[in-house]
Amino acid sequence: MNFLPLSSTQIEGGFWGRWQIANQQATIPAMYKQMADTGRIEAFKLNWKPGMPNPPHIFWDSDVAKWIEAASYTLVTHPNPGLEALLDEVIALIAGAQQPDGYLNTHYTVVEPGKRWTNLRERHELYCAGHLIEAGVAHFQATGKRSLLDVVIRYADHIDSVFGPGPQQKHGYPGHEEIELALFKLYRLTGEKRYFELGRYFVEERGQPPHYYDIEARARGEDPANYLFKTHEYTQSHLPVRQQATAVGHCVRAMYFYSGVADLAKETGDASLKEALDRLYGSVLRQMYVTGGIGPSRFNEGFSRDFDLDNETAYAETCASVGLFLWMQRMLLLDLDAQYADTAERALYNGALSGLSLDGTHFFYENPLQVNRQREKALRPPHHRQDWFDCACCPSNISRLIAQLGSFIYSTDGESIAVHHYIQGRARLEVGGTRLTLEQITNYPWEGQVRLVLSLAQPARFALKLRIPGCCRGPMLCLNGRAVELTPVKGYISLEREWQDGDELILELDMPVHTVYADPRVSADLGRVALQRGPLVYCLEGVDNGALDELALPRSATLEALFEPDLLGGVVTIQGEALRLVPTAPALKPEHAGLYETEPPVYMNVSFKAVPYFTWDNRQEGDMAVWMREI
Amino acid sequence: MNFLPLSSTQIEGGFWGRWQIANQQATIPAMYKQMADTGRIEAFKLNWKPGMPNPPHIFWDSDVAKWIEAASYTLVTHPNPGLEALLDEVIALIAGAQQPDGYLNTHYTVVEPGKRWTNLRERHELYCAGHLIEAGVAHFQATGKRSLLDVVIRYADHIDSVFGPGPQQKHGYPGHEEIELALFKLYRLTGEKRYFELGRYFVEERGQPPHYYDIEARARGEDPANYLFKTHEYTQSHLPVRQQATAVGHCVRAMYFYSGVADLAKETGDASLKEALDRLYGSVLRQMYVTGGIGPSRFNEGFSRDFDLDNETAYAETCASVGLFLWMQRMLLLDLDAQYADTAERALYNGALSGLSLDGTHFFYENPLQVNRQREKALRPPHHRQDWFDCACCPSNISRLIAQLGSFIYSTDGESIAVHHYIQGRARLEVGGTRLTLEQITNYPWEGQVRLVLSLAQPARFALKLRIPGCCRGPMLCLNGRAVELTPVKGYISLEREWQDGDELILELDMPVHTVYADPRVSADLGRVALQRGPLVYCLEGVDNGALDELALPRSATLEALFEPDLLGGVVTIQGEALRLVPTAPALKPEHAGLYETEPPVYMNVSFKAVPYFTWDNRQEGDMAVWMREI
Repeated sequence: MNFLPLSSTQIEGGFWGRWQIANQQATIPAMYKQMADTGRIEAFKLNWKPGMPNPPHIFWDSDVAKWIEAASYTLVTHPNPGLEALLDEVIALIAGAQQPDGYLNTHYTVVEPGKRWTNLRERHELYCAGHLIEAGVAHFQATGKRSLLDVVIRYADHIDSVFGPGPQQKHGYPGHEEIELALFKLYRLTGEKRYFELGRYFVEERGQPPHYYDIEARARGEDPANYLFKTHEYTQSHLPVRQQATAVGHCVRAMYFYSGVADLAKETGDASLKEALDRLYGSVLRQMYVTGGIGPSRFNEGFSRDFDLDNETAYAETCASVGLFLWMQRMLLLDLDAQYADTAERALYNGALSGLSLDGTHFFYENPLQVNRQREKALRPPHHRQDWFDCACCPSNISRLIAQLGSFIYSTDGESIAVHHYIQGRARLEVGGTRLTLEQITNYPWEGQVRLVLSLAQPARFALKLRIPGCCRGPMLCLNGRAVELTPVKGYISLEREWQDGDELILELDMPVHTVYADPRVSADLGRVALQRGPLVYCLEGVDNGALDELALPRSATLEALFEPDLLGGVVTIQGEALRLVPTAPALKPEHAGLYETEPPVYMNVSFKAVPYFTWDNRQEGDMAVWMREI
Repeated sequence: MNFLPLSSTQIEGGFWGRWQIANQQATIPAMYKQMADTGRIEAFKLNWKPGMPNPPHIFWDSDVAKWIEAASYTLVTHPNPGLEALLDEVIALIAGAQQPDGYLNTHYTVVEPGKRWTNLRERHELYCAGHLIEAGVAHFQATGKRSLLDVVIRYADHIDSVFGPGPQQKHGYPGHEEIELALFKLYRLTGEKRYFELGRYFVEERGQPPHYYDIEARARGEDPANYLFKTHEYTQSHLPVRQQATAVGHCVRAMYFYSGVADLAKETGDASLKEALDRLYGSVLRQMYVTGGIGPSRFNEGFSRDFDLDNETAYAETCASVGLFLWMQRMLLLDLDAQYADTAERALYNGALSGLSLDGTHFFYENPLQVNRQREKALRPPHHRQDWFDCACCPSNISRLIAQLGSFIYSTDGESIAVHHYIQGRARLEVGGTRLTLEQITNYPWEGQVRLVLSLAQPARFALKLRIPGCCRGPMLCLNGRAVELTPVKGYISLEREWQDGDELILELDMPVHTVYADPRVSADLGRVALQRGPLVYCLEGVDNGALDELALPRSATLEALFEPDLLGGVVTIQGEALRLVPTAPALKPEHAGLYETEPPVYMNVSFKAVPYFTWDNRQEGDMAVWMREI
């Protein structure tokens, strides 16, 4: 199976429609302004000279590339001549920065000339190249223009000449993975096998002894053991991929790497790669927050160990959840198993989407599951959405994901079509030998009903496969008004029949409020409960609920889902009765009473309101908690 | 009131008897060996030359001084000619290191000659001097020998010439307080008013503008703002003492400072100092663990903010609890209020005593209230008793406290006698004009009965004041077999009458097992409960209870106290029924089930056993928790 090209899908209205509009109208311009103001665009003029301030940073190129990718994808669904012209301008600058041999990197061209490809372990040359390639592919697909595509093809050809198994070539691979999946994309677009082979080389060579980063460090005259993270696990290069069983190191690197490995497995059918990916997936699941956030630690921006999921210090980078989504979607092409789609959906609606403000102009880099501003003062500056970051990977990552979301909804192999996500809009494709339009009308995830209407040029036999989200307990399906018995296989119902023009399916996904409990080995969540409805994980904000630490949810609590059209742009909240600890009024305590009493605490009944996690910190700043104490 | 001199008291048998014996027989020799092995003794020979390894460290002198103080105090109650001879040897070395002008500091004499007194903020010259003075006083009191006393008098005279308000004098004060209380001690022993005045100068000058540490830094050619902690709060020198309302900075420094301030308040009767101390006491209470540990943060070894009392990362240095005891005892001399004795007792039996292994040879520097070795690997090395520390302040501190404990049990003003602590042994004193021996027979804190027998040369009228510990709810008292009505004033019952030889009091302190709840503002303890019996706080160890995170205590649990003669040298344990979370067996779960379920967790009944906190980590290494989740 393959996903539909973005141009064959359209998201309209519903939950995601307004995000796509805000993306082009607010997020893309806001990011451009930040990039221009910080010198990232200007850098491609190569005017920087030693001694000048603000030298081009090693990852600046990737920010511009990801912005081009995001902006281009928005043009597919929302044509915008002004934005297209701006893209042309930026692309002309980039083209002008390409060196005669095809090399293209602002930092190494002006700041460290002569040091190209000498520190793959820590610098981001191949990472930036990968994002430029993805941008070139996206821009071509969106506009049909080859202006950036030809540039990145020349750059890819140059990289292909430098790296590989040949005796004169470097046997290295990127410290920050990304170029692998980009090369596979370029191969699928151009049919040029060399890009596939180079992507495969980067995947297969990774972690082979003797370790390239050690060789490379010695060549620089450095002790290979003496570097920041002191373990090749940080870059997932500690072992060849088939020997990896545990998700380790920097999360975003890991997600991009596993995505590239999944692409390779898809192209080659190599079962040993799929087996490795499933082992790594199991490991990620044991290290994943309920929000689909991964990476608890700011220290390595990465994995630590199973069940280590502190809520308050959670790093859970937006990019890591975006990367998890991208990897999980690729797993669906290897194995139509709804568990991957469930995880993709969890990351999408919670840990990734939380990275963007409702108005599209402010961002989270870190996505903790609990914030107590009084305590936090000691840990780090108050957690609040920012308009930019020095290390600005997250804004463009959530932006490019939203822009291309349509391409992840459906996949087809020509004989069948699978619906992975319930998102209002339309898809056009050819299946069972006929042209088909599939329309989804749904208010998912706010409501559980999904209407699917098929328009066919002529009747045709094919299988339509519908994912039943893992959180549904009693889904129901009607075909042209008649109930269909549901027998999902790996989470997908397959309806194989001769379809007629106008056939209508109504899928009713039950959307109760779930209380969620973590595995007891997650000590941070012991005795605690989270609330989830459909794919949305909820949280409590201080602005609705006052002091959050003192709230506890009785197991018997009745929980009600309520649509509030005027709140946060219109959201379903979860409301109910909770208990609030009643501290003894200080005035009633003896002086110097101290903190410890032998009387158990007293609780009073209070109402509480939970909002979707992705909407938090869009009103006044304050505290937040996903996990409530259960009583 | 004043405490009795150590030589007028004797601890025999009971809870503390074996600690005092282990102290002289095991702890004192173990510490001496460590000091000799690490060069701390040898350092006084002043043989170190630039370029040699292991230069005398700025706080080494204090380790030796505190060892002398501890060893000397043990001689008062347990004569030991061998130890006395060893003391003579060490003292001869120290005397030999004294400079012609009286100065005495190994580090500055051989490592940084010429830099004396140039960095009071960060170096420990006056701190080491203070401990040497305390050692000289203790050695004289214990042996009658002036060998060390005369040395420290010469050193005190030298310091008195350097520091003070005079135009040629330095207007500084110690970065690490200690010398203040030592000078007051030296004054009380010698009657030499100059030492009192110098101690008062150090207290009163502290924090006065312009700030001495800034002046001193500029004199060194440094930016006064550029130092490790970047706030004078770290050294409690941010404000003059009477303006201080919040306990801040390094905890041990704070405790020694407040002790010195209490000494000054006692000598001068200055009510404004007592008021400041009470404000600071209130602040300490809001930052104190249930164990009497203070200082949650390894960062500054000190205070952070009210209610910030994480159990797992708790620093709670042994020295800080020793210091809290020393300060609280001094508060009793300003105001006979049992709240100070309650806090002293809490620190003594829990946060301080936990610093010493049952055999007297291993030590805790940090005293966390929860240890999970699996999690801890990421935070710091596994927490386990050590035989020494590079920064070795804690071993000698708990040792010197145990050695002089007898002097803190009773105080008298000649007209009355107050009993602050229930410790088996004997005291000899003069009160109401007659010589009296007061004998305590008690197994406190294991049992609640205390027998007090008075032996008088002749009948005498005086008040006998008995502290009722704050945790007792229904104490009973019999005088010569007849019940006495109890009307405690500030926690002390006062029995004023004409006492006869052979009068016998039997005090029955109720010793139920208390469940203890923290103020809800202590978020680390929310929904949790601790167990306490008498002054002893209990904990659960992994060796008795398996995995601790999964245990929860039902509010209805029956808790039983049981003496176990063969456990940990004989302790009362607390036993009962708890609930243990039953994780789904991994084999029964679908692969890739993930961590999150919508079914509430299942618990099973299990027995648990809690042991006194001070006894933990005396068997096999493992997990520990003071606070259990309540269910």
